[in-house]
Amino acid sequence: MSLYGDQEQTFSVNREGLLRELDKILPDDALLYEREDLTPYECDGLSAYRQLPMVVAIPSTIDQVQAIMRICYERDVPVVARGAGTGLSGGALPHHQGVLLSLARFKSILDIDTRNRTAVVQPGVRNLAITEAAARHRLYYAPDPSSQIACSIGGNVAENSGGVHCLKYGLTVHNILKLKMVTVEGELITIGSDALDSAGYDLLALMTGSEGMLGVIVEVTVKLLPTPERAQVILAAFDDVEKAGAAVGDIIAEGIIPAGLEMMDRLAIQAAEDFVHAGYPLDAEAILLCEVDGTNEEVSDHIAAVRNVLTRSGATEVRTARDEAERANFWQGRKAAFPAVGRISPDYYCMDGTIPRKHLPEVLRGISELSQEYGLRVANVFHAGDGNLHPLILYDANREGELEKTEAFGGKILELCVEVGGTITGEHGVGMEKINQMCVQFQSAELTQFHAVKHAFDEKGLLNPGKAVPTLHRCAEFGAMHVHHGKLPFPELERF
Amino acid sequence: MSLYGDQEQTFSVNREGLLRELDKILPDDALLYEREDLTPYECDGLSAYRQLPMVVAIPSTIDQVQAIMRICYERDVPVVARGAGTGLSGGALPHHQGVLLSLARFKSILDIDTRNRTAVVQPGVRNLAITEAAARHRLYYAPDPSSQIACSIGGNVAENSGGVHCLKYGLTVHNILKLKMVTVEGELITIGSDALDSAGYDLLALMTGSEGMLGVIVEVTVKLLPTPERAQVILAAFDDVEKAGAAVGDIIAEGIIPAGLEMMDRLAIQAAEDFVHAGYPLDAEAILLCEVDGTNEEVSDHIAAVRNVLTRSGATEVRTARDEAERANFWQGRKAAFPAVGRISPDYYCMDGTIPRKHLPEVLRGISELSQEYGLRVANVFHAGDGNLHPLILYDANREGELEKTEAFGGKILELCVEVGGTITGEHGVGMEKINQMCVQFQSAELTQFHAVKHAFDEKGLLNPGKAVPTLHRCAEFGAMHVHHGKLPFPELERF
Repeated sequence: MSLYGDQEQTFSVNREGLLRELDKILPDDALLYEREDLTPYECDGLSAYRQLPMVVAIPSTIDQVQAIMRICYERDVPVVARGAGTGLSGGALPHHQGVLLSLARFKSILDIDTRNRTAVVQPGVRNLAITEAAARHRLYYAPDPSSQIACSIGGNVAENSGGVHCLKYGLTVHNILKLKMVTVEGELITIGSDALDSAGYDLLALMTGSEGMLGVIVEVTVKLLPTPERAQVILAAFDDVEKAGAAVGDIIAEGIIPAGLEMMDRLAIQAAEDFVHAGYPLDAEAILLCEVDGTNEEVSDHIAAVRNVLTRSGATEVRTARDEAERANFWQGRKAAFPAVGRISPDYYCMDGTIPRKHLPEVLRGISELSQEYGLRVANVFHAGDGNLHPLILYDANREGELEKTEAFGGKILELCVEVGGTITGEHGVGMEKINQMCVQFQSAELTQFHAVKHAFDEKGLLNPGKAVPTLHRCAEFGAMHVHHGKLPFPELERF
Repeated sequence: MSLYGDQEQTFSVNREGLLRELDKILPDDALLYEREDLTPYECDGLSAYRQLPMVVAIPSTIDQVQAIMRICYERDVPVVARGAGTGLSGGALPHHQGVLLSLARFKSILDIDTRNRTAVVQPGVRNLAITEAAARHRLYYAPDPSSQIACSIGGNVAENSGGVHCLKYGLTVHNILKLKMVTVEGELITIGSDALDSAGYDLLALMTGSEGMLGVIVEVTVKLLPTPERAQVILAAFDDVEKAGAAVGDIIAEGIIPAGLEMMDRLAIQAAEDFVHAGYPLDAEAILLCEVDGTNEEVSDHIAAVRNVLTRSGATEVRTARDEAERANFWQGRKAAFPAVGRISPDYYCMDGTIPRKHLPEVLRGISELSQEYGLRVANVFHAGDGNLHPLILYDANREGELEKTEAFGGKILELCVEVGGTITGEHGVGMEKINQMCVQFQSAELTQFHAVKHAFDEKGLLNPGKAVPTLHRCAEFGAMHVHHGKLPFPELERF
């Protein structure tokens, strides 16, 4: 049975005919259809879901993307766009009857404008490559997902990626100015502008985080920021996770917005320490890593202020990195946390809920209660400052039923996030993974509006079908949705 | 002939029947229909356009708003929502066959959450009232349009308002977290979340700046920021407008993001000085006001750095406010600039284009050339830092044809903004005023997408009909649009 469950939409695609037409507009090396060539594309970073596409197209020009879209539109062929494939919610999971459209060859940085502080880049450019290219102008691109070495800017836009620094510098949507996108019909349109605002509806923001459901991004104009004069990090240890959670709110309440404010709990600390010897206190129940950046004086000020807050909030130890080497060490542990947890468990499942900061203590308590209830260990490693939780549920896929139990546990964590006014995804997107939790987050009226927006961009439902937004029918079955006036509104939109 | 020209959409509204139904759900003082009661609503801040609505409804509860929308939806009655009516693009201009929906009675600040740094407010709350209420917690709401004493937060969201501080702190869309809105069908939906991100398409950003075309905002959750420890302002004089324009880019290129960076030219300086005696240098061709805020040390640093840049950039005088009184004086002149210009000309027309910062010098040159060409004086007073121009065209409405000449001149300025990669509106919106320039800014494919989005929220086209987005037909007539493949796409969307 299909992965999509009742998100499934049936397409009847003539494979031979499709290949023949794509072959006319693409060079040989840009069209893959043999099983062994398709396999590398069968999943993204959420490898629990796998699906071979019918065809993989790897265009190098916007014209080729437009031609591919026109062909698929005429033949009602689903299209799933893919960047670097590092996504964690299955957003780039191929469709078995569709074209997997890889933007991997859109690798050029087209322009860096130091005076306007912008860069024009192709969607396949790696996140970190933008900062590397801007560095000689003392500029950088702020959003920095953990995968920044590998992930592409096009994927960042599709998922509205964040990262350690988004507390102070915002998500992807706050750091881009303009997009060129190809519509499902193959039209090239430009949204946003080179100025700080743009007339008309904010399609730029609408596209950002739309998970490949509304169009194919072919060019991105990003904002660049001046590299801070100085950055410094403080490590604070706590004998209690909830105290650490409360300290996060205390720092922000002090009027300081750290460049990064990360939290790790005991299990994560120990895994990371074993792995990279970051010098973390092994007896702590939780640590906070608080980075401040800016001018020299500003940083000195903030360091002093943050140290006071942390002590007042009951930190058992507060350590400021002595030098750049120790600072790098502190971050090394945080950055290695996921692979480190991978070393202590056969499998782990990374969640991505976001909550209002003030609810951190109670939600952390809730997670540890659920951990008891399900008998599964959880390592917490997350962007505490912006309330973006990344609980890692440890499990063993080879144990009968443990994956299912893990997914159920994960679902409960996300529902807990929604209960306190939060959301089921901070930066990883909904994709295939969180379709059911969307039913918890939204009521039928809101889902209906999402479907209507999808319909406005993609009437035939060809772009990344079955992802991101659940059908009302699925939500009704999931039992988590309030159906309006006892009937599903807009039944004609059901198929989206 | 109707103000709307071919933006006109015909509705056949049964006035008596509508009044009867509205009367059932609204108290007497919430329903106006006598001519003398309607007159105060005939225009917003763009008083060149006037139109009496059929009915004015002034609900006090969300239930009443939903009931009004249900009635209008059933009867195909246009609805124009209105906040404080301070808008400058005619966005709240009533429809002669429609309901003018005033949110004036939604005045409550429902919650201030110091730990999450948010406030939940009703749409009719004045922008400045939020900051006043938050002040005792050392917090404030950053966007500060010049009209902030009077304008409402609901209107700010509808227009995505900016202000002096949006260079550093962003536009309205960057400072709100969640909205409650009533759809055209009368459904209450919640978009965004209390957390920093939200799942699903970014309807929050889509609603922001949508000028009342997609729904009625009934509650807004805004972000609050800590009041800066210190703010300081520098006044720099230049003997040449373009030098001043170039200096703006030099400051930003230095890696400093001022809290505000404003520019005034000779005519504006003299008018303001005559009016409020701000102490401006009367011999200057242009002045820059650069405000920096933050911690004490940070401000001292930045003041020193900015002074150096300004001197290098050829300022003839650089003056740092000696004390809070002088700082207030400097700003007083800027804030009084519009009324001051009103004193030296019977009428003026305020434009609102935004351009990439680096093009300031050439665009300022272009404006003064156009000024010669049209024989109309222009005073420039604007948010230079974010490239948001506010040229004030001085004219006399009583002189035959001068208003028309002024509008043509204004249109040319906006087209110049588009030419350099900018946009026709920074913060005032399109409304009725800039419908034609939308044809210059966008191609048919983009306009078609706008119409499709409108269709997704308002299939019948009842919400603020005729505003913000031109029909493709109008653009074709205006002669500024590339019609795709020789035909207008999506003719069925024409009526929007």
